[in-house]
Amino acid sequence: MKRRAFLSGAAVTGAAAAASAALPTPAIAQDKRELKLVTTWPKNFPGLGTSAERWAQRISTMSDGRLTVKVFAAGELVPAFEAFDAVSSGTADMYHGAEYYWQGKSKAFNFFAAVPFGLTATEINAWIYHGGGQQLWDELSAGFNIKPMLVANTGVQMGGWFNKEINSLEDYKGLKMRMPGLGGEVLRRVGATVVSLPGGEIFPALQSGAIDATEWVGPWNDLAFGFYKVAKYYYYPGFHEPGTALSGGVNLAVWNSLSDADKAIIEAAAAAENDFTLAEFNARNGDALATLINEHGVELRKFSDDVIKAIGEAAGEVVAEVAAEDPMTQKVSDSFMDFRAKAVNWARIADQAYWNARELPYTYGK
Amino acid sequence: MKRRAFLSGAAVTGAAAAASAALPTPAIAQDKRELKLVTTWPKNFPGLGTSAERWAQRISTMSDGRLTVKVFAAGELVPAFEAFDAVSSGTADMYHGAEYYWQGKSKAFNFFAAVPFGLTATEINAWIYHGGGQQLWDELSAGFNIKPMLVANTGVQMGGWFNKEINSLEDYKGLKMRMPGLGGEVLRRVGATVVSLPGGEIFPALQSGAIDATEWVGPWNDLAFGFYKVAKYYYYPGFHEPGTALSGGVNLAVWNSLSDADKAIIEAAAAAENDFTLAEFNARNGDALATLINEHGVELRKFSDDVIKAIGEAAGEVVAEVAAEDPMTQKVSDSFMDFRAKAVNWARIADQAYWNARELPYTYGK
Repeated sequence: MKRRAFLSGAAVTGAAAAASAALPTPAIAQDKRELKLVTTWPKNFPGLGTSAERWAQRISTMSDGRLTVKVFAAGELVPAFEAFDAVSSGTADMYHGAEYYWQGKSKAFNFFAAVPFGLTATEINAWIYHGGGQQLWDELSAGFNIKPMLVANTGVQMGGWFNKEINSLEDYKGLKMRMPGLGGEVLRRVGATVVSLPGGEIFPALQSGAIDATEWVGPWNDLAFGFYKVAKYYYYPGFHEPGTALSGGVNLAVWNSLSDADKAIIEAAAAAENDFTLAEFNARNGDALATLINEHGVELRKFSDDVIKAIGEAAGEVVAEVAAEDPMTQKVSDSFMDFRAKAVNWARIADQAYWNARELPYTYGK
Repeated sequence: MKRRAFLSGAAVTGAAAAASAALPTPAIAQDKRELKLVTTWPKNFPGLGTSAERWAQRISTMSDGRLTVKVFAAGELVPAFEAFDAVSSGTADMYHGAEYYWQGKSKAFNFFAAVPFGLTATEINAWIYHGGGQQLWDELSAGFNIKPMLVANTGVQMGGWFNKEINSLEDYKGLKMRMPGLGGEVLRRVGATVVSLPGGEIFPALQSGAIDATEWVGPWNDLAFGFYKVAKYYYYPGFHEPGTALSGGVNLAVWNSLSDADKAIIEAAAAAENDFTLAEFNARNGDALATLINEHGVELRKFSDDVIKAIGEAAGEVVAEVAAEDPMTQKVSDSFMDFRAKAVNWARIADQAYWNARELPYTYGK
């Protein structure tokens, strides 16, 4: 709490300082300004790095060059997992990443990225934009001098890459697996040894045997990293990340120094990218999965109902325990779980019911 | 074809004319400009009219007032279904509506709004943004002097309001039902008498008995229109509109006269609204459905598998026949149906598999 109080104080002071530094006189308020954007992704990595680049480009084009955003891949300015601290301290102006990477700061960040058996992409958008999520996120991140926003979504991820079949919960015992966020906590609960690694470090770890299994994103991204070369079984569905939100953060002092037009440009560019990137994952994943299976001999496997049930029960316990760690995480979790209960009910009438119904007509589309 | 050739010619000439009219000298290129936006919706109607207003407001804020957009509800400047012609001819600068309302111009427009047993919101976004859909839409609409874009989505709709139960295909025989677009064609095929009415005209038609049944959107919108007062049974899933895209159109001469920054602002505002509005429908529909059931005694019913199968077969026939009407519609349909085949496969591994798996853990979220 000390750290948060300190940073909140810094944010207020910093805002005034940055405002005066950025806008020394009204006459040059329209001067060009360059913002440094650090990411947690390899340079131009499909859907992740490229989305960060597009967010930057949209801001530049819409502001007619008044704002330009210089993008730094993981490691170029700071290491992947230090992106948050870099923006919090003002070393960088913005980040593009996933909030569960900051769960060491507060477990509450997990709820703004992915929760096992939680919300899908469309559901997390509904919670953030219209269900009170953004207000809680603003409150949480303001404690670290950051203004957060949704900026992309991977959609439903795959369950991961394994070198052996997963037929029962026993098969997780002793398994060394890369999985970030709360999904990692759940697998620990069922006996796995779990690590969180940035994307660029996964392949060598899997190849060397430092880990036995990994999840990353979905077919399009996983094909790009070449995991099929070192693992054979590809499991679904990705119960641990059913629609991972990727997030943008802006240093709060920088944010407060911007005009209403520039704030609106950054936010609309983020929301547009949120829409555009999810669509890109949904468009590319199917083709990439076909390539993995048909050209690389990957074996697609579905988790058994028994494994799903057992991991789902463990996930419910983990979420409840994590929520109890501090009052802010409890508040965020309560809001998320209330929304989840409604989302489950609506999906049954809407998307889920429709998708299951679409299977029934025999000739349509055949 | 004559009309299209004429309008294409007009677009080219008009572009140059509008560009010189709007920007008489470089010195006043930053002058303020007001654009007239006509909609097919009642004033500030939840999710539809309000999304049009937000699109307008985002454009105004991001351009710092350089562009302002004045919104006209259905009937204020032109009747709902004349919005397209108004923008095509230049009476208005932009529209906010749904493309199936223009199917009298070309059946191809249906594919950019809703296709029975077709794509959901996330899938149609994937097709439009990343599957070749936008290019085909640009080609189709340019023939009418219009630049089109996605601007909102209702998500999966409900199947409609009925005064009797629908237990078999026989129950559609002789039924007078309001349903626009290809869904209407499908119901005609199974024996219903189908009309397309703008939203504001549905309630009186249902109350007077001019129609026996209607679909509109989903619980949030349908509650606002009060259909529960004149119909008892509320069916799901909405096989006829599994994720209706709402669209923005800009007069092509106006569009071509805009700067790159202003084009980017209008497009990002539309994509942001596309994201934001779907989220709003998903957030509001569940609560509204509970209100309809618990406070207004509405009876929720699921279409039987037999009805779904039979209507699905009819839908497949209708789409194939409609596609054959002219080469452009065939080209659009081929692209849509190719994408649909891939989307069905990916949903089975991703969203559909996840949603069905989420049902399995017994205690989580209970």
